[in-house]
Amino acid sequence: MNPTGYPFREHELYRSLVDAADRIRRPEYHLRNLVQDDRRWSRFSRRGGGLLFDFTRQRIDEPILELLLRVAGDLEILPRFRATTRGEPVNVTEKRPALHTAARDFSGQALMVDGTDVVRRLEQVRDQFRRFSADVRSGRITGSTGRAFQDVVVIGIGGSHLGTEFVATALAPFSDGKIRLHFLSNVDIHNFGLIASRVDPETTLWIVISKSYTTVETLANASQAVAWMKAGGVDPAGHLVTVTSEGSPGDSRDTPVLATFHMFDFIGGRYSVTSAVGGVPLSIHLGYDLFEEFLRGAEKMDRHAAGAPAEQNLPLLAALISVWNTTFLGYQHQAIIPYAAPLSRLPAHIQQLNMESNGKSATADGRLLAEPAGVVIFGEPGTNAQHSFFQLAHQGRPFPIDFIGIRRPFYDQYEARYQGVTNHQELWANLLAQATALAAGQPAPEDPARHFPGNRPSSLIVLESLDPASLGSLLSFYEARTIMEGYLWGINPFDQFGVQLGKTVAGRIRQTIARSNADPGRQLEFDDPLVRVHLERLFGR
Amino acid sequence: MNPTGYPFREHELYRSLVDAADRIRRPEYHLRNLVQDDRRWSRFSRRGGGLLFDFTRQRIDEPILELLLRVAGDLEILPRFRATTRGEPVNVTEKRPALHTAARDFSGQALMVDGTDVVRRLEQVRDQFRRFSADVRSGRITGSTGRAFQDVVVIGIGGSHLGTEFVATALAPFSDGKIRLHFLSNVDIHNFGLIASRVDPETTLWIVISKSYTTVETLANASQAVAWMKAGGVDPAGHLVTVTSEGSPGDSRDTPVLATFHMFDFIGGRYSVTSAVGGVPLSIHLGYDLFEEFLRGAEKMDRHAAGAPAEQNLPLLAALISVWNTTFLGYQHQAIIPYAAPLSRLPAHIQQLNMESNGKSATADGRLLAEPAGVVIFGEPGTNAQHSFFQLAHQGRPFPIDFIGIRRPFYDQYEARYQGVTNHQELWANLLAQATALAAGQPAPEDPARHFPGNRPSSLIVLESLDPASLGSLLSFYEARTIMEGYLWGINPFDQFGVQLGKTVAGRIRQTIARSNADPGRQLEFDDPLVRVHLERLFGR
Repeated sequence: MNPTGYPFREHELYRSLVDAADRIRRPEYHLRNLVQDDRRWSRFSRRGGGLLFDFTRQRIDEPILELLLRVAGDLEILPRFRATTRGEPVNVTEKRPALHTAARDFSGQALMVDGTDVVRRLEQVRDQFRRFSADVRSGRITGSTGRAFQDVVVIGIGGSHLGTEFVATALAPFSDGKIRLHFLSNVDIHNFGLIASRVDPETTLWIVISKSYTTVETLANASQAVAWMKAGGVDPAGHLVTVTSEGSPGDSRDTPVLATFHMFDFIGGRYSVTSAVGGVPLSIHLGYDLFEEFLRGAEKMDRHAAGAPAEQNLPLLAALISVWNTTFLGYQHQAIIPYAAPLSRLPAHIQQLNMESNGKSATADGRLLAEPAGVVIFGEPGTNAQHSFFQLAHQGRPFPIDFIGIRRPFYDQYEARYQGVTNHQELWANLLAQATALAAGQPAPEDPARHFPGNRPSSLIVLESLDPASLGSLLSFYEARTIMEGYLWGINPFDQFGVQLGKTVAGRIRQTIARSNADPGRQLEFDDPLVRVHLERLFGR
Repeated sequence: MNPTGYPFREHELYRSLVDAADRIRRPEYHLRNLVQDDRRWSRFSRRGGGLLFDFTRQRIDEPILELLLRVAGDLEILPRFRATTRGEPVNVTEKRPALHTAARDFSGQALMVDGTDVVRRLEQVRDQFRRFSADVRSGRITGSTGRAFQDVVVIGIGGSHLGTEFVATALAPFSDGKIRLHFLSNVDIHNFGLIASRVDPETTLWIVISKSYTTVETLANASQAVAWMKAGGVDPAGHLVTVTSEGSPGDSRDTPVLATFHMFDFIGGRYSVTSAVGGVPLSIHLGYDLFEEFLRGAEKMDRHAAGAPAEQNLPLLAALISVWNTTFLGYQHQAIIPYAAPLSRLPAHIQQLNMESNGKSATADGRLLAEPAGVVIFGEPGTNAQHSFFQLAHQGRPFPIDFIGIRRPFYDQYEARYQGVTNHQELWANLLAQATALAAGQPAPEDPARHFPGNRPSSLIVLESLDPASLGSLLSFYEARTIMEGYLWGINPFDQFGVQLGKTVAGRIRQTIARSNADPGRQLEFDDPLVRVHLERLFGR
């Protein structure tokens, strides 16, 4: 197996796929016609890992699926995914493994990396926050003045924020409301100020999450929190918890805290919600047992992703469709539309997961791609999105959609009917109607304002319910799909060198401001005149 | 003036603009070079209507701006915008005016439409909810059991939801916390269930917002709410308010309510937050005075948009840049990145406003466009977005960005410094760094993983602070820009026929389910087999 792989564009079947894309654009292959095939459902839907995946309304047919699967086979996408879960150093540019799957590996089997059993290490951390969260929830562990904690503020950004927010929002119906969760992610002081106005220093626990413990936003927010706690008469050491790497500045006597939970460099931020990053806050907020159910759901899909043959493999099929839509059919964006209000933050989490993983222009072996990889991901829940941007979906620029549906709702006691159906039935009527209408359209060339061209592709992912295990399956599905997409594009989905330049320039601007703060007589000098003009307006004297 | 206008593509300068786009793609016109011009700031930044608009980092130069302004002049964009605010029937397909600006017209001048002074009518409604909101806030108006209201649930979707949510979130620091606001937009029963689990029927007021009072989601949610109130022992008539058209089913004795506030067919949903749609819930939540400040900020920008000459007109310049980026430079999506945590829902609101207004394929006079109008709008607050999808912005597919910055924060009392700067300074260092790094890049062709091509365009919009008036200016800026974009594309930005087909199909599926509900022995028959297979899985017996 080639450790870095190569882009599917370099595969000998690339030309055949381009030809197939030309073919599928012909009017007789309009989705309206493709879906007429009696075998459409049996050939283009699959079950696995806890989910149902319906891709009957994608612009593919059997010859195209076969070509895509042959490319996936030759590029060894599944063997490379299995190598990923076995701890091989697939993050080639940073020379380390990518082992988020180990965070939910309950197989009991060891997984050795550099002489350490990482499954065991992750289990120890899990045990640690299982006990800690129980103690916080029961009031055995209290704040410095002896009062039980009622609010938890997660200080973390990007990978240390969005996954936990997505899961907490999704599982809100399961929360007993005992301990509220807040997210202090943005260095914008409005984020801090608003939280500070709503919580009591005596009953608030702050969880600072940063692998290196040098993330500027997170440390700046932690400083504000510490100053505020001191002003509020509590001892920060009794109100702080850190989630960080072993030996980081957050894992030191210089940072006195209630507890420190370790995270590891073999789990990247955007893949970390099943580690202590999500585990500590979610266990405190929801109770550890629900968090473990979530992990077990993810594990179920992990096994499917690593074990199911290509033809039956949900994440692989989804990855192939994504690449097909982007590179061959030219769609530059994809929407994620969960027909489930609690999944309101899923699009933002997958936006991060996918765009940060695959928004690249360099191959894993260091060459420039012919065209950039990755797509723009966006979305809002349905039916809301129908009343917002679906006008453009139907009649403007088309984009592929992942519809997500929930078979059984958490709240089944509300059964008032409007127009003869329950809310849950109305929701499904709308989901199915949108997928159908986008695919089939309704041509009216004589009346362009009411002309629906159709041929808009979509998939439908169905969860049995919005319970923690189903949510874990859904998360793992998107993680595996993202990684397989990256492997198809021939890039490394685990690095993110693209965020460096902005940090470097921000550092230079920060130094300029800091020098002016330290010496108020000093001019705000900066080489870029367009930056300087703003700095003078903002902070000049 | 031609009442329907025509697309800028049909203007004689279209070819010159295509040539100019070819020119600006040449290496010597890389943004890195364009921003070196000493006159960049003076030529490509403007103040007006309460905002500062910096477009120095857009891929234009003076000849291009001049061409764009000539097209705007010939297409009479500003005269058409002024005609809009004067009540002419610019919504040509639906034969009515588009008068959201009248909702914040404090000029004292009458504006007659069909023999009615609409400014006066809107003022009467405003007076009505000014008094009503004061009475709810003071406890003079209570629920049916005599207890004061503590929670308000807005039942409304799309235009009856997102604008109010955006404003309420943005002005959260101004809330006195007396009355909490919830949004029941989604027909998903999880939305209702979660709210019902958190509020007390005795102290909750429900505001049902629907122009026609036939919006399925809204009426279905209202039914659930009424059933729940009855089960909770309160009289729905004492807990319901409607915002609807005069004479609609919600403005009738058949719907007994505490109060009804009128909305009008000359204000479309996505433009309605400054009408009673936003006014009723926001006045109860924040107090009427803050809502009026918000209106006065919008009015200020309305006057600028209608009155400032083209060369100085912020919304027009922004609209021209948007069209330039989309049609001539080929960007299919735009991000809105507010460096302000409270503006977290601005992108979703503008996504609706812009995509529903301009995601069209038909001209206002009923012809098919050569290419669809509109773009995909998405975004999350900065600095969060830097840690999420900016990898793709820097190294993947480029997209134009609107950065939004706030000069003075609401919370100025938190001054702990990290690395020598306050949080607010750190925030600005990052905003300016991103705009700079995206524009200039940092070429490293020998190391593709660390190669930053730059040439990524952005604008920067600066608000003095996050007060209601500034927020009003920002809203009006985006509204006017959206309308002017629509006029440039030659479409009608006020209709939305593209949402009809999905509603029709949903109605057919609903009837199928309703028939099965009414007669459980009956098969779930539906002509589309891909719909039927799901219906049987979901609701079959």
